[in-house]
Amino acid sequence: MAAREADAEPVHEARGKVTITEIAREAGVSVPTVSRVVNGRSDVSPSTRARVEDLLQRYGYRKRPAAPGTRAALLDLVFNDLDSPWAVEIIRGVEEIAHASGVGTVVSAIHGRSGDAREWLRNLRARASDGVILVTSALEPILHEELRILGVPLVVVDPAGSPALDVPTIGAANWSGGMAATEHLLSLGHRRIGLIAGPPRLLCSRARFDGYRAALEGTGLAVDASLVVPGDFHPESGFTGCNALLDLPEPPTALFAASDQMALGAIEALRRRGLRVPEDMSVVGFDDLPEVRWSAPPLTTVRQPLADMGKLAVRTVLRLARDEQPDSPRVELGTELVVRASTAPV
Amino acid sequence: MAAREADAEPVHEARGKVTITEIAREAGVSVPTVSRVVNGRSDVSPSTRARVEDLLQRYGYRKRPAAPGTRAALLDLVFNDLDSPWAVEIIRGVEEIAHASGVGTVVSAIHGRSGDAREWLRNLRARASDGVILVTSALEPILHEELRILGVPLVVVDPAGSPALDVPTIGAANWSGGMAATEHLLSLGHRRIGLIAGPPRLLCSRARFDGYRAALEGTGLAVDASLVVPGDFHPESGFTGCNALLDLPEPPTALFAASDQMALGAIEALRRRGLRVPEDMSVVGFDDLPEVRWSAPPLTTVRQPLADMGKLAVRTVLRLARDEQPDSPRVELGTELVVRASTAPV
Repeated sequence: MAAREADAEPVHEARGKVTITEIAREAGVSVPTVSRVVNGRSDVSPSTRARVEDLLQRYGYRKRPAAPGTRAALLDLVFNDLDSPWAVEIIRGVEEIAHASGVGTVVSAIHGRSGDAREWLRNLRARASDGVILVTSALEPILHEELRILGVPLVVVDPAGSPALDVPTIGAANWSGGMAATEHLLSLGHRRIGLIAGPPRLLCSRARFDGYRAALEGTGLAVDASLVVPGDFHPESGFTGCNALLDLPEPPTALFAASDQMALGAIEALRRRGLRVPEDMSVVGFDDLPEVRWSAPPLTTVRQPLADMGKLAVRTVLRLARDEQPDSPRVELGTELVVRASTAPV
Repeated sequence: MAAREADAEPVHEARGKVTITEIAREAGVSVPTVSRVVNGRSDVSPSTRARVEDLLQRYGYRKRPAAPGTRAALLDLVFNDLDSPWAVEIIRGVEEIAHASGVGTVVSAIHGRSGDAREWLRNLRARASDGVILVTSALEPILHEELRILGVPLVVVDPAGSPALDVPTIGAANWSGGMAATEHLLSLGHRRIGLIAGPPRLLCSRARFDGYRAALEGTGLAVDASLVVPGDFHPESGFTGCNALLDLPEPPTALFAASDQMALGAIEALRRRGLRVPEDMSVVGFDDLPEVRWSAPPLTTVRQPLADMGKLAVRTVLRLARDEQPDSPRVELGTELVVRASTAPV
């Protein structure tokens, strides 16, 4: 393997093993100071510059490969986990546009683990990637800073957290989607509408919840806190959450699950109790994963344009790589209600 | 973008745009002859060697980058299409082992199109990938040959066709799986068991069909051709196939669908007719996609170890990259019957 061959040579072993942060620590200066030296800026004292440059040289640290022939024409697409069926939708969109641009798509998962993220960053540097698309908020701020120092363009897809303000993000219109799902149920005459919510630490969960509330309030209803149960976007939590709602003295007649997978879990909870969808309970999901066209019954849901989000992310990161600015640092692609067979009049 | 910057320089523009095949054509020699020149073998006449080397040089063709520093520590993982939920399972397995080995995973789709495959091959050469894992049989023989000439190790996952004999392949025990699915239905007392088969041009389809037949014959039954309908692994064909079986004068009491997606389509066809699974019809799938744990009802199916197949593919291609031989050129990982709620006694 190339990596192993390179490891045999001390200089190559050192390169890629040491981060900017570690160099800053060893030099006794701040990370931004190392950044200034790497980027050739003049606002560093000569003695500090010399000390940092010594360390950069000793560890074989280069900002990015200098010779055009060694540039890789690669994009890095980074997920927290690859266990979700929507990951493949994003990969599909990214690969399509990257491929058409002659750029390879390197797919990684960092599992929310700091060690994996650092390892990935080291590999990123070694392969001189042209840009990074992050489908996660799990990257620690310090790694964002390292990416910035490396000069690698970064775009965040589906911002679940609150990324730094100078990073372009591409999301879906979660608030509008939550409102459309709830308004659909209201239009069918439902008044007791349960919500299986996503994790409140994620912005998308909060936006979907607020859309649900806005729709209720638009009809003169208030949120009934007993009808809102927590979930984590996975099917198990939809199963549990639906059971909790069914155990209420007065269960809802309809259910908005903030992810398709939770909707599938809810439908299974209903099936186990001998309850039918939509006759006994209407269910709306969120995502429009390919498989829910074939759930039993086919799921009414809010379509997130995941592949389109991936495509726009590539276009944006390629613009950044050409030193152009994105049209807007914050883009939300529209969501769309898709009515299938899991919802019916109350 | 790096690719564009490189394009500005004539030599770099030429490199990556011309294939071995084209060089052979222009030199008026065979592809193997070009291969002999590239690999420095002596059994080429001096005048032919000179002509080919001129062309190789003119087009900036290099076998692979020579300097270790320019090696990429990359693997290429190539799908025909990225529209299947099982793709993400394979990506997950490949990425896990590649990441642990400090190797990036470049994911591509070639859509069964010759142009896309050639474009991918050009990009592969430009980025000096260390190995290729092909999850498709759609690569034309000539591209296999180009890979061989480039000296890039190749492993094929889930061989659907008949790859060249010198390529290691990693598949699943499709025949055993087809037999296990059918034996399970037989053990529940079913005797009229329908099959929604996969495309007969794929080896895996034929193996699953033969497993179905072997199980029937093991119980003294013969295949009833009227109970076997064609499918293409997608849900729509399961829907159509199930309807065809239900329209028979004497429909089956159980159904083996040769993919989970076809099983989901079949369940939807049953639901639309008001028939229940498993009370009115038992259904067994094949794959064990993550989502069928949450289908309604949860699907009895044959588990293909897709992530494990991806992991083994990485280990194999890394062995080849170190000039070691794989343990076996042909590996089939075991399949396993997973009994859930979609099957019941007749």
